[in-house]
Amino acid sequence: MVTLRKQYVVARPVYSEDSFNVDYEKIHRQRKTTLDHVKEYLTCDSKRVKKAVLSLLPIIGWMRIYRVKEWLLGDVVSGISTGMVAIMQGLAFSLLASLPASYGLYTAFFPMLIYFFLGTSRHISVGSFPVLSLMVGAVVVRLVPDEGPPANITDFEGLDRDQQRVLVASSVTFLMGIFQLAMGVLQVGFIVVYLSDTLVAGFTTAAAVHILVSQLKFVLGYNVKSFTGPFSIIWSLEAIFVKITSTNICDLVMSIVIMVVVFIVKELNDRYKAKLPVPIPIEVIMTIIACGVSFGFNFETRFGVDVVGKMVSGYESPLPPNMEVFEESAVEAFPIAIVGFAVAFSVAKVYSIKHDYTIDGNQELIAFGVSNIFGASFRSFAASTALSRTAVQESSGGKTQLAGLISAMMAMIVTVALGFLLEPLPKSVLGALVIVNLKGMLMQFREIPYLWRRDIPECVVWVGTCLGAILLGLDLGLAVGLGVELLTVVFRTQFPRCSVLANIPGTDLYKDCKDYLHIFQPKGVKVFRIPSPIFFANIDFFRNKLAEAVGFSPIRVLRKRNKALMKLKKLWQKTDDNIAEEGWRGSYRHTADEYCMKGEELDQPTDFKDLPFRMDWNAELPAHISVPRVDLHSLILDFSAVSFLDISALKGLKTALKEFIRIDVDVYIVSCDVYILEKLHSCMFFDEEILTSMFFLTLHDAMLHVLEKHKEDKGRSWLLSDTKL
Amino acid sequence: MVTLRKQYVVARPVYSEDSFNVDYEKIHRQRKTTLDHVKEYLTCDSKRVKKAVLSLLPIIGWMRIYRVKEWLLGDVVSGISTGMVAIMQGLAFSLLASLPASYGLYTAFFPMLIYFFLGTSRHISVGSFPVLSLMVGAVVVRLVPDEGPPANITDFEGLDRDQQRVLVASSVTFLMGIFQLAMGVLQVGFIVVYLSDTLVAGFTTAAAVHILVSQLKFVLGYNVKSFTGPFSIIWSLEAIFVKITSTNICDLVMSIVIMVVVFIVKELNDRYKAKLPVPIPIEVIMTIIACGVSFGFNFETRFGVDVVGKMVSGYESPLPPNMEVFEESAVEAFPIAIVGFAVAFSVAKVYSIKHDYTIDGNQELIAFGVSNIFGASFRSFAASTALSRTAVQESSGGKTQLAGLISAMMAMIVTVALGFLLEPLPKSVLGALVIVNLKGMLMQFREIPYLWRRDIPECVVWVGTCLGAILLGLDLGLAVGLGVELLTVVFRTQFPRCSVLANIPGTDLYKDCKDYLHIFQPKGVKVFRIPSPIFFANIDFFRNKLAEAVGFSPIRVLRKRNKALMKLKKLWQKTDDNIAEEGWRGSYRHTADEYCMKGEELDQPTDFKDLPFRMDWNAELPAHISVPRVDLHSLILDFSAVSFLDISALKGLKTALKEFIRIDVDVYIVSCDVYILEKLHSCMFFDEEILTSMFFLTLHDAMLHVLEKHKEDKGRSWLLSDTKL
Repeated sequence: MVTLRKQYVVARPVYSEDSFNVDYEKIHRQRKTTLDHVKEYLTCDSKRVKKAVLSLLPIIGWMRIYRVKEWLLGDVVSGISTGMVAIMQGLAFSLLASLPASYGLYTAFFPMLIYFFLGTSRHISVGSFPVLSLMVGAVVVRLVPDEGPPANITDFEGLDRDQQRVLVASSVTFLMGIFQLAMGVLQVGFIVVYLSDTLVAGFTTAAAVHILVSQLKFVLGYNVKSFTGPFSIIWSLEAIFVKITSTNICDLVMSIVIMVVVFIVKELNDRYKAKLPVPIPIEVIMTIIACGVSFGFNFETRFGVDVVGKMVSGYESPLPPNMEVFEESAVEAFPIAIVGFAVAFSVAKVYSIKHDYTIDGNQELIAFGVSNIFGASFRSFAASTALSRTAVQESSGGKTQLAGLISAMMAMIVTVALGFLLEPLPKSVLGALVIVNLKGMLMQFREIPYLWRRDIPECVVWVGTCLGAILLGLDLGLAVGLGVELLTVVFRTQFPRCSVLANIPGTDLYKDCKDYLHIFQPKGVKVFRIPSPIFFANIDFFRNKLAEAVGFSPIRVLRKRNKALMKLKKLWQKTDDNIAEEGWRGSYRHTADEYCMKGEELDQPTDFKDLPFRMDWNAELPAHISVPRVDLHSLILDFSAVSFLDISALKGLKTALKEFIRIDVDVYIVSCDVYILEKLHSCMFFDEEILTSMFFLTLHDAMLHVLEKHKEDKGRSWLLSDTKL
Repeated sequence: MVTLRKQYVVARPVYSEDSFNVDYEKIHRQRKTTLDHVKEYLTCDSKRVKKAVLSLLPIIGWMRIYRVKEWLLGDVVSGISTGMVAIMQGLAFSLLASLPASYGLYTAFFPMLIYFFLGTSRHISVGSFPVLSLMVGAVVVRLVPDEGPPANITDFEGLDRDQQRVLVASSVTFLMGIFQLAMGVLQVGFIVVYLSDTLVAGFTTAAAVHILVSQLKFVLGYNVKSFTGPFSIIWSLEAIFVKITSTNICDLVMSIVIMVVVFIVKELNDRYKAKLPVPIPIEVIMTIIACGVSFGFNFETRFGVDVVGKMVSGYESPLPPNMEVFEESAVEAFPIAIVGFAVAFSVAKVYSIKHDYTIDGNQELIAFGVSNIFGASFRSFAASTALSRTAVQESSGGKTQLAGLISAMMAMIVTVALGFLLEPLPKSVLGALVIVNLKGMLMQFREIPYLWRRDIPECVVWVGTCLGAILLGLDLGLAVGLGVELLTVVFRTQFPRCSVLANIPGTDLYKDCKDYLHIFQPKGVKVFRIPSPIFFANIDFFRNKLAEAVGFSPIRVLRKRNKALMKLKKLWQKTDDNIAEEGWRGSYRHTADEYCMKGEELDQPTDFKDLPFRMDWNAELPAHISVPRVDLHSLILDFSAVSFLDISALKGLKTALKEFIRIDVDVYIVSCDVYILEKLHSCMFFDEEILTSMFFLTLHDAMLHVLEKHKEDKGRSWLLSDTKL
């Protein structure tokens, strides 16, 4: 069988890094300096200008390739269906933001006008997103609470509560837009990678819980004070349950009916996806029915049902943002900006891969930044995208943002002309529709057991983010989640499983010596594998593990040797002065006193200078003098998995290596990354004790070198030289 | 020359992970389950009890080996010298904590009584630490400001301002003690590794700046309102400079004289360290002189100098902590607990290494926790250790905590009997002594250029922590610094330098193909090295780099092939129905419509089921059908530096591999860590497309396998089979 197999046959010289560099010269690669990059960045020619314009106005790109015959119909149909969803979601999500319903329609209109020109995604539906609306709502309620006076902001004078709230919401949105625009201009769109799928899943699940709780009061049909800040969800639930007896039965029944019907129809839509030309727009149908019934039977006066009420007809004058609100809400606007962008970008990415075009994160940031600044000026609140709405837009045939523009137009028509039709719509219907749409987000709880079995740190991130966001609120929760996530990265490398390797006989392979029976560990050599990057958090751990692996602490051995040496030197002087035998004892006390004085000298390299003979520490020494026996002559450190070193690790490593070198253990480092070697050179790692000759290309190279070097000392047993004793 | 060198000769079979496992059986190692650990933890026998008692009461350990003759004298001398320093620092640091001076003496006494029994370090001097005092002071001033009413806390009623402040300080200290004790009991002492040297340097430098600013008002001799919260340092400086004209000249002159004298003598102490038996206790001398002069010339009434004033004589009754203060200060007490422990532990570690004994982080946490709880009950404030005081204790001959106990007794004597002697001491003298001791901490600024040249991320951590702590306050700054530090770890692995490797001819070595001239890249094979762990933050980066390295996007190729296949199948049916030639065009439109409908099917593996001939995508295809040419048949991924994978990376990797496998590129993974392989198995990484046979032991094994496999297809050029066409 073996003969049939392909053989691995190699014959080449043993290479250390140094000898390899002699045999094979490296091409000198010119690295670009920061200056070069700046120069390149500032170079200007017509091609670059054209590219810049195209990347700043992606509309030019897709407009030029627009296939009117094939795409236009799809875009129009999709725009109309998306528009209906957008109107309903606008109304519903404005409740989450604690704003009058008509401002949700504004949000479905203004941001889209800008995104049409600046956005790189052709499929997302720009507009309100429940999580964002809720986060804006938290600021709104904090600054303009349901009960009690609003925050001390001068511009609030003369405004009623809803107007104050609109001012707060649009100012927060404006600030969020500024943050997004700034991040886009600074090209830091990559930061969304820190929001891993796990973190986002935990976060959105928590958001779903918050949304559920916030809609309960609408579904139950009574008013409850809104709470903000950490643990507000607990106070909210308490307040809701305290008033549970004042439930409006009409609201509750209507909500339950709607939830059940919508749920069932959605399941059917899902099941017969392939057979239905378009999914049944059950939410729109239910809204229309509810509107009609509520108007016909006059629910508002007959059952005291809370309805949407007077809609603002047409658009209001632009509103400058308020600086005092900026100051009050800066800490909250930043996570809103991040979440808004992250959601839009991840949804956009899914569709860009599906339809094979590229999207640009930084341009998306700019697009959303400008959209939100523009929208906020016209009193709309935070815009991003909703997964459900985008799915409608794409599945109903939308090919470009023309569909988005048409859906925005639909929102405009309702605002300008048809808003009065929605006035009898009960708020409980909107609440019920929001809740029934939470199914997907809440189903993510099923990920917990999956993650727990697969990868516990990841599960901790999920649960930490989710619990943090539920209990502390979405903004603080996001920060907690990020912290936990970053900690897990450190944690994964903090307690890695170091191992002692040994040779599989007859091969150049090295494996964990605990894993195999017939494995060869040459006497006096230890191969120690470091299976992770080394940095401040694990350098001490490695040093401990290394001491454990070799079986002694090199610094202690060094100190004992130095103490012994002092005694020996004294002894030598005495014998030199021909005071024999009894001098052994006399000198002892003296030396003992002496070495007490100079503790630090003990850590220095053993100084054989005044000694006329060669020491072998493992040989027999005079009485009273004993040092621990060290059977190790070579230590090989496998650096193949060390992907980076920081300064703390560098210092720690240097100390550790010196400790070994000073007790005459040869240290070799193998498979070290090129860039780490470069860094060691630039950080003055090498000196008269730590030499570049310690680096070898592979484990086997180093081992062959060691075996060669120690071939002849097999029988070595130099004692103290016999010159004088 | 080559002949003289040791040769590297290996002949063995080519091993994949699978074939290696067949040849060499792995020893089944029994891993301890969580249950085993719990069982072991709960096992109880006399040996374990003894060990537990010894580790809980380290005093037993060192008392048993106490060498009375050799150590006692040193301990007593050291205790007296440390005691004098402790008294002075106690007085001075109580100013930092905005408390009456006598409580600093309490802090030098009570915590030590407990630490004596519970502490594992024999050399640190337990007591006040300037940074901690300042952090406690920040809470004190926030809750009981200089001007205006104190916080709304019921227990404040009937207390004067100083008493209120003592209540706040002792409650914060109590809470800090609870945190430390809890961390010790939970065995989480390892968390201090997150406070890297760089972070601590930046943090302590910022603390020195805060201390400097806080002492300016004492040195200048006028009262300034204290500020708290972010940016308070700016308001403080503004307030100080606004009142600069009301400087008390006597205070200023006295401070400057003291600072200059102390500075010079300290430099001399340092320079003649070797020759002096003990360093000159210049601070104690200056304090005594200042006391005498101030009393003799009656500075207080003559020059309006602010003096220490009435000292509390003796001890006051214990004080229960206040729950309302707990609530108000929980967020601040936690960083205080961490900083206090981290400083004490790092100082203790230095001396434990020097004197060769072990300290136990978790026991230290318990010791400091109980010390602070006990101390706080007797109105002392946060205790840790001061580097300077510990240096005195160790250098003057202290061998055990007996020295600490004696220094505590000295503090007690002053409190009980000699306090009145310190009453005329001007506060400006204490301020001057605090400032002159900041030299070492402020000198750390010199690290910035050093770090900048060596390691930019580390420099960012330093500057970020320092600026954060200066501007936002110490507690928030510490959090910011930690965040930045964790980010750098992620950042170091986020944009790693991937490379394409190639073979050094005649060897089994592979190097970056851009680095060497004569390097061998077999046709159709790419070797891609991943030089860092793969996780959520860099998986997309890797996939992009990989696509860049191979020169095409596998998913696009797959889609184009699938589209082409649909056309071919149609075409085949037509030719089958004997509709020749013109059918080519007729079928085209139809298929184009069809594939538009089923976007997702395009990502599935190419389905050759209905095709009676074998496809070669690189061969010539009928007109109208074109697919990108793929010259790659094998892709080898070098995983040697991949030290961990998370779930996001796992999913991303699986997708990426499948994309390649589906376009008939064989993917091999080499040098994969054992534990990562295990994880892949447990996470269901393998299926009918991704097989365990893709794992090879080394790069060269995989390469030999690939070359063998593709030896015979050198001349392959199967066209569409000629069965029917």
